[in-house]
Order: sequence, then C-alpha cells, then structure tokens
Amino acid sequence: MEKKSFSLKALAKLAEGEVAGDGSVQITAFAPLETAGPGDISFLVKAGQVDKMETFQGSAVIVPMEIENASVPVIRVQNPYLASAKIHTLLLEKVFVAAGVHERAWVAKSADIPSEITVAPMAVIGERVKIGQRVTIESGVVIGDDAHIGDDTVVKANACIGERCNVGSRVIIHAGVVIGADGYGYATDSRGFHTKRPQVGIVQIDDDVEIGANACIDRAAYGVTHVKSGTKIDNLVQIAHNVVLGENCLIVSQAGISGSTTLGRNVVLGGQVGVTGHITLEDGVMVAAQSGVHNRQKAGTTVGGSPTLPMKTYVRAAIQYGKLPEMGRELRRLKKEVAKLQEILEKQKNE
Amino acid sequence: MEKKSFSLKALAKLAEGEVAGDGSVQITAFAPLETAGPGDISFLVKAGQVDKMETFQGSAVIVPMEIENASVPVIRVQNPYLASAKIHTLLLEKVFVAAGVHERAWVAKSADIPSEITVAPMAVIGERVKIGQRVTIESGVVIGDDAHIGDDTVVKANACIGERCNVGSRVIIHAGVVIGADGYGYATDSRGFHTKRPQVGIVQIDDDVEIGANACIDRAAYGVTHVKSGTKIDNLVQIAHNVVLGENCLIVSQAGISGSTTLGRNVVLGGQVGVTGHITLEDGVMVAAQSGVHNRQKAGTTVGGSPTLPMKTYVRAAIQYGKLPEMGRELRRLKKEVAKLQEILEKQKNE
Amino acid sequence: MEKKSFSLKALAKLAEGEVAGDGSVQITAFAPLETAGPGDISFLVKAGQVDKMETFQGSAVIVPMEIENASVPVIRVQNPYLASAKIHTLLLEKVFVAAGVHERAWVAKSADIPSEITVAPMAVIGERVKIGQRVTIESGVVIGDDAHIGDDTVVKANACIGERCNVGSRVIIHAGVVIGADGYGYATDSRGFHTKRPQVGIVQIDDDVEIGANACIDRAAYGVTHVKSGTKIDNLVQIAHNVVLGENCLIVSQAGISGSTTLGRNVVLGGQVGVTGHITLEDGVMVAAQSGVHNRQKAGTTVGGSPTLPMKTYVRAAIQYGKLPEMGRELRRLKKEVAKLQEILEKQKNE
Repeated sequence: MEKKSFSLKALAKLAEGEVAGDGSVQITAFAPLETAGPGDISFLVKAGQVDKMETFQGSAVIVPMEIENASVPVIRVQNPYLASAKIHTLLLEKVFVAAGVHERAWVAKSADIPSEITVAPMAVIGERVKIGQRVTIESGVVIGDDAHIGDDTVVKANACIGERCNVGSRVIIHAGVVIGADGYGYATDSRGFHTKRPQVGIVQIDDDVEIGANACIDRAAYGVTHVKSGTKIDNLVQIAHNVVLGENCLIVSQAGISGSTTLGRNVVLGGQVGVTGHITLEDGVMVAAQSGVHNRQKAGTTVGGSPTLPMKTYVRAAIQYGKLPEMGRELRRLKKEVAKLQEILEKQKNE
Repeated sequence: MEKKSFSLKALAKLAEGEVAGDGSVQITAFAPLETAGPGDISFLVKAGQVDKMETFQGSAVIVPMEIENASVPVIRVQNPYLASAKIHTLLLEKVFVAAGVHERAWVAKSADIPSEITVAPMAVIGERVKIGQRVTIESGVVIGDDAHIGDDTVVKANACIGERCNVGSRVIIHAGVVIGADGYGYATDSRGFHTKRPQVGIVQIDDDVEIGANACIDRAAYGVTHVKSGTKIDNLVQIAHNVVLGENCLIVSQAGISGSTTLGRNVVLGGQVGVTGHITLEDGVMVAAQSGVHNRQKAGTTVGGSPTLPMKTYVRAAIQYGKLPEMGRELRRLKKEVAKLQEILEKQKNE
Repeated sequence: MEKKSFSLKALAKLAEGEVAGDGSVQITAFAPLETAGPGDISFLVKAGQVDKMETFQGSAVIVPMEIENASVPVIRVQNPYLASAKIHTLLLEKVFVAAGVHERAWVAKSADIPSEITVAPMAVIGERVKIGQRVTIESGVVIGDDAHIGDDTVVKANACIGERCNVGSRVIIHAGVVIGADGYGYATDSRGFHTKRPQVGIVQIDDDVEIGANACIDRAAYGVTHVKSGTKIDNLVQIAHNVVLGENCLIVSQAGISGSTTLGRNVVLGGQVGVTGHITLEDGVMVAAQSGVHNRQKAGTTVGGSPTLPMKTYVRAAIQYGKLPEMGRELRRLKKEVAKLQEILEKQKNE
C-alpha cells in the first residue's frame, strides 16, 4: 500500500493550528512520542510534559499553544488531543474499495444494494433492505427485512440490525451489537402470569453514531427508540425501548437506560450507570460511574451516587461513608456523656 | 396481507371485559390514543386520563371499570394494560408459514426437523437436534448437537444454544443470546494456578420464557441450570451455572445471578441487580435496581441497597446518605458543645 | 465411544494424593456423591460432611487428609476440590479428532491452516490468519485478517477475533465473545462534537486463558491490550483498551475495567465490579462484588464498596449504613438535649 504524505503546513490547516519551524517537512504517519521515527508526527497533551520531547526521533509534534517553539517543527493548537485525532485519522484514511457481495453472503433479491459496497461471507441481508454507498457489511451480520442503512456505514462481524430499523451515514456498529430486539414489556394478570406487550416500533440511529461491541438497543413499543447524531455508545450498554439519546452523548460501557427515558445533548453517563425509566436528563448532564439516576436532572448538572446527589455532596458523602463505623461509636459515646450531664444537673436541681 | 377483523364484542370476550356502546363495530388494528384512526382500538390506563379521549379518532377504547360509557364504544376491564396486550397480540397474530430450511443454512443429517419449520440462511443445526412444530430459526443461529427445541419457539439472529440443552415451547430467544456456555468454575492450587472444573450439566428452558438480546445462561457444573415457565429475562442478563429461576420471574437488564442460587416464583430483580451464589430468594421477592443481595430473602419481601435492606429502611438510609456530610459536621459540633458543658460543670464542682 | 479406565492408584498419582484401601479398583467416570454408581469416583470437600458417604454407591472417593480410611477406597489429598477437577478432566479428556474445514465454512486462501483442525459450517477465517494444531473453530466464528491462534485453542460459536489480534494456546473463547473491537476514545471539540481517536493497537491473549460468553476485550489505542496466561474471564465482562491483566486473574461476570488500567497476578474482581482507568491493582488484590475501584491498590489488599474501602471498614460501614435513619434520629434528639442542658446552665449563670 502506498503511504500518504502531507506537509506539516497542510496538517496544521486541518488542525486549525500554527506551524513553528519548517512547515514543508513531509509527514507520513502518526506515532507516540516514545516510538516515533522519521516521517512520524506525535503529540504532547500538556506543556508541562515538554521534557518528553528531548529524546524524540520523529519529524514533528502537535503541541499546546504555550509551547512557542522546539527543537523540531511543531503545530501549535488549542487542543492537542483533538488535533492529533484529526491528523491521525487523515493519515490512516483509506479510499473505500468495494469488494462487492461475496458469493458466500446471502442477499435477498428485493434488497436495494449499490455496486459500491462490501458484503463479507456469511452476511445475510433481508427483503427490501436499502443500503447506501460505500457501506461495509462484515461476516455474519444479519440485517432484517426493510431495514435502511446510510452511506459510509460499517457494520462489524455478527452484529444484528432488526427489521424496519434505520441506521444513518458514517455509523460504526461493532461486533455483536443487537439493534431492534423487542423491548421488555409485559402486562401481568392477577395470578402473576405475564403477557407480552407487542413491540411494534423501530430503532432509528442517526449519522456519525458509534455503537460498541455487544451493546443492545431495543425497538420501541410504538414509535421510535432514537439515537441522535454524534452519540458514542460503548460496549455492553443497554438502551431500552423508546429511549431518546440526544446529539453527541457519551454512554460508557455497561451503562443501562430504562424505557422511555430521554437524554438531551452531550449527556455523559459513566460506566455501569443505571438510569430509571420515563425521566429526562437535560443537555450536558454528567453522571459518575456506577451511579443510579432516579429523577429528572437539570441541564449542566453533574451528579453521582445511587440514588444520585449533586457531585460535591456525593464526594463528601462517600468520604463520610468510610467514617460511618467511627461515627456510630462517637454517637454512642456522646449519648452516654449527655446522659451523665443530665444526671449531674438533675442532682443539682434536687439538692 | 389481508387484515384481520374482529367485532368489539369478540374482543371483549377475549379480554374478559364488558362492552358499553355498539358491540358490533369492527376492529382491525391497535394504535395509541393519539394516532388511532377508523378501525383502530386504543386503551386508557387510568380513568383520570379520560380527557385524552376527547380528540380520539379511532373506533373503540379499552377503559378501566370506573368509566361507565363514553362518546365511542368501549370495553370496560379490570386491567386495561393487560387487556390491551391480549387484544393487540391477537390483532397482530400471523399464521405460521413454514419457509422450510433455506439452502444456505446447514442442518446435520441426523437432526430431527419437521416440515413445518423456517430455518434462515447461515443457521447451523447440529447432530441429533430435535425441533418441534412451527419453529423459526433465524440467520446465524447455532444449535449444538443433541439440543431439543419445543413447538412454536423463535430463535433470533446469531443466538447460540449449546449442546444437549433443552428449550421448551413458545419460547422467544432474542439475538445474540448464549445458552449453555460453560459455568465459571475453577479449583486453585497453592501456587495460584486455576484448574477448570468440567461443566457437564445442561440448561433447561421451560415453556413461555423470553430471553433478551445478548443475555447468557450457563450450563450446570452437574445437573441443570433451570429457567421455569413464564419467566422473562431482559437483555445482557447473566445467569450462572446451576441457578434455578422459578415460574414467572422478571429479571431486568444487566442483572446477574451467581451460581447455585434459587429464585422462587414471581421474583422480580431490577436492572443491574447482583445476587450472590448459593442462596434462595423465595416466592414474590422484589429487589430494587442496582441492589446486591447477599442473603436468603423470605417470600414477599421487598428489598433494596447493596447489601440489601428492607425497602423502607433502604429508602430512609439512602436519603440520610445524602445528609452524611451534614451529619459529620453536626457530630463534631455536638462533641465540642458537650465538652464545653462538661468543662462548665467541672468548674462548678471545683468552686 | 469406548470408556476410559484408570486404576485408583494412577489417579492418586495425578492428584498428588495417597490411596487408602484397594488401589487397583478401576475408575471410569466422575459423579457427585449422591448419584455415583459402580466405576464412579466422587469427592468430599470437607471432613465434616463424612456422613454424606454413608449411602455412597460408587467405587471410590477423593477425601481430605483428615479422613484416614473409609468403607470404600479413597484418595487422600490436601485439596479435594482441586484434585477432583484434575481427575474429572482426565476422565473426560478426548483425543482431538480433526474434522477438517467444513465445505460450508469460508477460509481465505492466504490463511495458514494445519490439517489437524476443525472448522465448522459458516465460520469465516480471514486473509493471512495463522492457526496452530488441533484448534476448533465453531460455527459462525469470524476471525479477522492477520490474526494468530495457538495450539489446542477452542473458539466457540459466533465469537469474533479482530484483525491482527493474537490468541495463545489452550485458550477457550466462549460464544459471542468479541476480541479486538475498537477502544472507546474520542477527542471533543469546543462545540461538543466528538472525533474518534484511531484505535490501531491489538489484543494479545496468552496461553490457558478462558473468556466467558459475550465478554468484550477492546484493542489498544496504540500497542497492546494484554491478558496474561492463566487468567479466567467470566461472561459479559468488559476489558477496555490498553488494559493489562496479569497471570491467573479471576474477573467475575459483568465486571468492567477502564482503559490503561493494569492488574497484577492473581487479582480477583467480584461480579459487577468497576475499575477506573489508568490505575494499578497490584498482585493478589481482591475486590468484593459491585465495588468501584478508583485508586491504586497495594499487593494483597482486600477491598469493598464504591469507592472502595479496606474490607473490614467496608463491612462495618455497610452495617452502619442500615442504621443511618436511626443515627439521624439520635443525632437530632441529642442536639435537642444538649440545647436543653445549655439553656439550664445559661439560666444558672444568670441567676
């Protein structure tokens, strides 16, 4: 494979940064500071770590604005972490090469599949499925009847997309993901038997979403379970029926969101967080790992604990929790001392 | 597809309810109150929401007993939620149409498969497997040697049923479920090396069970991991080896049950609950989400917290938890005040 | 299938134990004490349970050292649990019979596959994959390009091994496992949009590891996510990018380990434990179920709670937690009493 090459100046433009040093140096790859060689660009997150650059063997470094120049050419940016992600992505970018539909895949005749597509062996694409341009469907993927998939989306090995569900463009669905299983809904009779409530809705995944391995997003009872654009879901996350996730949320691994709950934009749930059903977490809410959210959360709030408290209170309560045995002892001691004082005063009174 | 049609009277009979208004009106579909049109039936959960019916455009409504009549024909029932589930299910019900074994599936010659079956492309059915009538095996499903599956069961895409496991009738197994993986059991030697203990038992799933996407039910070390009839398991749940789940349990998403634990009938575990091994949760126990159950729970108990407390205590303790920082401060203040009082009295005494 | 047969003496040698009674008795199978018959060997974990042997119908029992002889031949060992695991495994051991590559599997021409292999229907093996001797690849497994797999490894149904990942020898990968999905890493710009950070590293699984159903092990951002030899991972566990798990760790179901965290040897995480990123849990650390680990843990420490406390403190704090409502009441009562005492003394002073 031919390696790409970009001038430092061109990369600086992409990263909205400024070059200090020779902008014509050619960059062909991205590497960590410690292992970079000729042609490589690296990045430094914090100016305080500048001594890490002393033994640098690469060609250029992305640095924070505080660093004005260095022994090698640099790109100065507001956010080196973000700039390096953009530059690394550009350097890795491959032109989509359509491998077509593999003879060992099975695609329904009624499916609407472009020629610019890769469908791997053992993938199954159902009736009337519609797929956009430059899509990759890996081995063992199962796409149910009447599902739609946008352009440039990648569906990794053994993932399942249920019937009638919609997936946008530039979506990445990792291995083992299940989109569109039935929501968990039953009506229970007086003898304790559960009757399944039909789950006739769909799942809608908007553009630029990423969904981690073995995560589950259930179809709505009626209507739509909706993951809006730019939201990133980690492995083993559970999204129940009729949940709405706003734009650019981050849902960390093993978190679970119960039915009919709505998250605004840029909500962040830490790992193993649980959110109860039928509530709203407004824009920008952040929830600490392992917390349990039981109530509406106002925009911009940061909370922790199960049930959640404002973050400051939670941190203090958690510290105090460790002192509970001591508190118990102190309380018992105080009680005794107060009783003794009461006794003394009682005596005085009677004298 | 031809639409089904039922008289309101017939639906009332199914739902064990009474018609108020014209019982001959024909119903063809189920829809929410807000979007219903001609031919549709909807439902109202609570009498207090009766104003929702004002703009209703459908043909009939399932209502609670308190509503005696309305501007449209109604079915009056004890439990509208349950009645609507039954009626909706009837309206959606399709006659099973056997598609047969797809040429791109692989079925062992020794498997015992009826003609009334649908096996989708890329499904694999092992040696001596026995499958009942009207079963659907979706794409990518893997059924191990000597497994048995009852009538009218559906196994969705990419689910796995391990060798020798038994699945009953009318069971729904969602995508990515793993039934019959080895239980997690090791013996550790003095140097810290773990020797795997053979897991030679099976999993037995009884009738009318539903198992959510990517859930795992491990085979017993010896004997049987047993899920009894009518139990409903949500996505990403973990059921360890030798667990017994009684009839009609509800196990909500991401809950986990450790080895050799037994649940009675109608036990409810909230989301992300953990249950330790070798204990019993008797009939009707309910456990709040994210709780950790470490001890036997008596029939009918409702508990919460990790480790669990009786629900009332848990709710109060959880409220008090948020006040821990304040309690700590108060305790320190009281200590000082008591010390001051002691000092005053000491002085008095010495005077 | 012909049954194996071993003399009790031979089994005692394997288990590093001593025979009491007839060492020439032939053993053909392993069974629990309650169900054993002629030719079966069973085991007794504790000497105190010796009355369980009274109705024993089998041929021999593995017993703890304290039992000097019995009515049947016995093998006396230090650790009956371990000895029985070894003997049971020996009795079950089958010679690997290569079934070859099934005609309904798909193997890239560039893959390096020995003749001593079993590849089941619908398995997919990518370009330049290298597989060792006596490996079993079950149905629906997907192995990405350039992955390597060692000798005697078993990859169960529908598991996925990502491109370039390495799996050692005698590894057991259960159904639905995903090895080598992208790590969860994004850089966020000032408007809240997330740019994916390329995840270009791999996963390295060393020898004798077992990975439970639907568990996920993400590939490193750069470098290696590394699971060292002898470590056993339970179902639905999440191992994030760049995590290192030392030798012989036990990671119980639904636990999650965040990015770049390192575990030493023989670390034990209970079920549903969460571990934050970029920390170290040194050799032999044990973490109670559902705990949340936020800080470095020293070798040999046992901790519990979220955030974790030393185990003794945690147990006491958890007990005290249930008394929080009572503590709150006591504190309020004490406050009043102290106020009353202050008032009395104030009065005295003014008199």
